[in-house]
Amino acid sequence: MAPVRPFARTAQIDSVSLCDRIQLISRSGTTRLAYSEEDVRARAVVMEIMRNVGLNVSIDAAGNIVGRRAGREKRPPLAFGSHVDTVRNGGLYDGILGVMAAVECVATLEKICYTTAHPIELIVFANEEGQRFGALCGSRALVGSLKADELARVDENGRTLADAIRDIGGDAAQLSGAVRRSGDLAAFVELHIEQGGTLEKAEVPIGIVEGISGISYTDVRVTGAANHSGTTSMELRKDALVAAAELVLCVQTAALEKRCHVATVGQLVVSPNATNIVPGEVGFTIEIRDLDREKILASAKQIRECGEQIAFRSSVEIEFSDRTLIESVPCSPVVRDAIIRSCTDLGLKFQTLPSGAGHDAQMMAQLGPTGMIFVPSVGGISHSPREFTTSEDCARGTQVLLETILRLDDTLSNPAESQ
Amino acid sequence: MAPVRPFARTAQIDSVSLCDRIQLISRSGTTRLAYSEEDVRARAVVMEIMRNVGLNVSIDAAGNIVGRRAGREKRPPLAFGSHVDTVRNGGLYDGILGVMAAVECVATLEKICYTTAHPIELIVFANEEGQRFGALCGSRALVGSLKADELARVDENGRTLADAIRDIGGDAAQLSGAVRRSGDLAAFVELHIEQGGTLEKAEVPIGIVEGISGISYTDVRVTGAANHSGTTSMELRKDALVAAAELVLCVQTAALEKRCHVATVGQLVVSPNATNIVPGEVGFTIEIRDLDREKILASAKQIRECGEQIAFRSSVEIEFSDRTLIESVPCSPVVRDAIIRSCTDLGLKFQTLPSGAGHDAQMMAQLGPTGMIFVPSVGGISHSPREFTTSEDCARGTQVLLETILRLDDTLSNPAESQ
Repeated sequence: MAPVRPFARTAQIDSVSLCDRIQLISRSGTTRLAYSEEDVRARAVVMEIMRNVGLNVSIDAAGNIVGRRAGREKRPPLAFGSHVDTVRNGGLYDGILGVMAAVECVATLEKICYTTAHPIELIVFANEEGQRFGALCGSRALVGSLKADELARVDENGRTLADAIRDIGGDAAQLSGAVRRSGDLAAFVELHIEQGGTLEKAEVPIGIVEGISGISYTDVRVTGAANHSGTTSMELRKDALVAAAELVLCVQTAALEKRCHVATVGQLVVSPNATNIVPGEVGFTIEIRDLDREKILASAKQIRECGEQIAFRSSVEIEFSDRTLIESVPCSPVVRDAIIRSCTDLGLKFQTLPSGAGHDAQMMAQLGPTGMIFVPSVGGISHSPREFTTSEDCARGTQVLLETILRLDDTLSNPAESQ
Repeated sequence: MAPVRPFARTAQIDSVSLCDRIQLISRSGTTRLAYSEEDVRARAVVMEIMRNVGLNVSIDAAGNIVGRRAGREKRPPLAFGSHVDTVRNGGLYDGILGVMAAVECVATLEKICYTTAHPIELIVFANEEGQRFGALCGSRALVGSLKADELARVDENGRTLADAIRDIGGDAAQLSGAVRRSGDLAAFVELHIEQGGTLEKAEVPIGIVEGISGISYTDVRVTGAANHSGTTSMELRKDALVAAAELVLCVQTAALEKRCHVATVGQLVVSPNATNIVPGEVGFTIEIRDLDREKILASAKQIRECGEQIAFRSSVEIEFSDRTLIESVPCSPVVRDAIIRSCTDLGLKFQTLPSGAGHDAQMMAQLGPTGMIFVPSVGGISHSPREFTTSEDCARGTQVLLETILRLDDTLSNPAESQ
C-alpha cells in the first residue's frame, strides 16, 4: 500500500531558506539577459542548489535545466518550475520565485523523507523573457515549436540563437531529442508573482490562474491633413491627433465596460510632430487581452466601428490592420481544482484571475494538465528593481505549490478518489 | 493743385504680367531657404524686375531689398511688399504674391504716369520664414529688434547669421544704420495668401486682416506609471496617454466653443512607447492663438483646470509650463478702412479675419499704420508645392492693394478728407 500523503501542516516549507535563496540569485544585480554571462553564473548557482536538495540535474538540448527526483511508480513526471533570466533592470521575484519555491518543495519532501508516486521534475526554462531572440525559447523548444530559421537568427552581437544555446550548455543540433509530446507530463504547475495589483488590492494572498490571455494587436493609421496651426480654422481641420485621441479613449472604454479584460494603446507616434502644424498622421497600436477569443474579437470590432464614426465626423481616414491573433491558453480544471482544495486546506483566501502576461506554462499546457499560482506584487510593479513580494506571500505561495503537487500526485494516481 | 487720384478702373493692373512674374520666380523650384543660393538667384531676378518698373533699388544692411519711387511731396514713404524666401518644399504664392503685386502696382502707376504724394517703397524682406535662424529676420532688423547675440548664432553649416546676411548683400556691422523709427513709414500694406481655407469656403475674394494673432505655448507633462499592459488591471492603471488624450480633446473644445480662435496640440511624445507597456509619461505642447490676449489667457486657464480634473480622476500628475506669450498685433483702423472702401469701390465682397500666422507686417506696425490683405488659398493649403491661388484672385488682391495705396496716399495727405 502506498504511503499516506503527508498532511499539509507537517510538510511545512522553510520560509527563511526560501527567501535567502531568492536573494542569493540577485546578489550581483537584477539584469540577467538570457544567455548572458550573468545568466550563466546564476544558472550555475541554481544547479548547485538543485543538486544540494538531492535532484539529479542535467541540461537539455535547448538549455533548459532539468532536475529529477524519482517517484514510487513508473509514471510521467509531475513538473514545476519557472525561469531565472530577467529583462534589463528586472526584479528579484519574476521567475526566480517559481524556481526557488520548487527547490524548497523538493527540500521539504527530502526533509520529511516522502517519495511521491510520480517522479518529480524541476524545470528552469531558458530565455523566458525574450530580451534576446524570441520569448519562451526553452519551453517552445520542449514542445517542438522552436524552428530552424529562428535558431539561425542573429542578435546585435552577431551571434545566432544556436550559438547562444551553446553558451548555456545546450546543443541546438540535438533539439529534436529534447522535444516532448502530449502526455509526457502528468501535470505542470508554475508559481509566479502576479505582476499586477489585483491580489494586493483585494488583500487576497493566492491567485488561481484561469488561463493565459489571448492577445490581439491592431495597427491603426489615422490620416488627416498636416496644415499650419495658425491659419487653418478649426472647422476646416483634419486633425489626425484629435481623431486618434478619441479612439484611444474608445479603446479604454471597451475594457472599462468589461467588454474585454484589458485594452491598451501603449505606442503612438504623431507626424510631422511640430508645435505649429496640425497633425497630419498618427500611427498607433491597439492591444486587447482576454481569455475569451470571442470577447477579444467583439471588442476589436466595436472599437473599429467607433473608429469609423470618428473618421466620418472628423474628416480623417482611419485604416485598421490586424496582426495574427495570439490564442489564449486555458489552465487545466484538474490543476485549478487541486490548487483550490490546497488553499482551503491551508485556510488561505484565493481568487481566480487570468494571466495577462505570457509564461512558459502556456507551452507546457501542450504536454499535460497545467496550472499557475499567483502571489501578490506590491504596488503591482514588475520588470523593475522595485518589484517586491513579501516573504510571507512567497512562503504562502510555496506552501500552496507543495500542497498542490502532493494533491495532484494523489489525484492523478487514484482518479476515483479525486471527487 | 495736386493731381486727382486716378479712378480705380483706369489704374487697372495687368493680371497676365502679374501671373507671369509669380511663375518666373519659381521656375527652378519652390525651395528657396533664406540666404541660400536659390534665394540669392531669386532676389537677383526680383531686383531686375523692380529696376525695370522704374524703382531705385538698393539692399539695406539687413539684406532687405528696398525699391524707391519718388513722391510729389516730402513725406515719409508709403510702403508695401513681402518676401521671396520659402520653407523647404514651399509654394508659389506665399510671399511672392505680395512682392509681385507691389511690382505690378508700381508698373501700373508708371503706365498711367501717376506720381503719388508720398514716396513709395517696395520692401522685399530677408528671411521671413526662418528655416535658417529665426523668422522675420529682415523686418526685425528694420525695427531694431535683431540683437547681436542672434547675429553670432551658427547654423548647421557652421555659418553665422552675420555671414548669411553678407551672402545676400547686407552688412551686419552696419545694422544700426538700417533701423527705422515710429513714424518713418506713412503706412505699410502687405498682400498675402490666406494660408487657410476661410475665404475659399465663404466664397469671398478679399480678406481684411484685423490683426496678427498672439500665441501662447504651454508645455505639458503627464506622469502616470509605466506598467505591463497584460498584468495591470484597468482599475489600477495610471495611463499617461489616456489622460493626455482627454486633454487633447479639451484643447480642441476650447476653440470649437469659440473661447479662442484656434487651439492645437501639434507635438506629442509617448514614453516608453511600446505596444505592451501602459504609457508612463506623455509630453506635449498646447498652442493657443487669438487676437485677444484675454481670450488666450482665459482659454489656457480653463484648459489647465480641465487638466487638473483629469489628473485627479486618472491618478496621474499633469504639469503645465507656460512659455512667454507672443503678443498680438492689431492692424491699423486707418488702413483697414482704406481696404474696405477700396473693396466697396471695386465691387468686391470682403470679410475681416485674424491672421493666425506671423508676417513681416507685424514688425512694420511699429513704424506706421499697417494692414494686410488676404486672398483665398485653394483647399487652405500652404507651405507646400500644392499651394494655389487662382490668377483671378491674385489680380483682385493686387487691384485692391493698388487702390488701397492710392486711397491712403490721399487720406494721409489730406486728413480732413478721410471721413
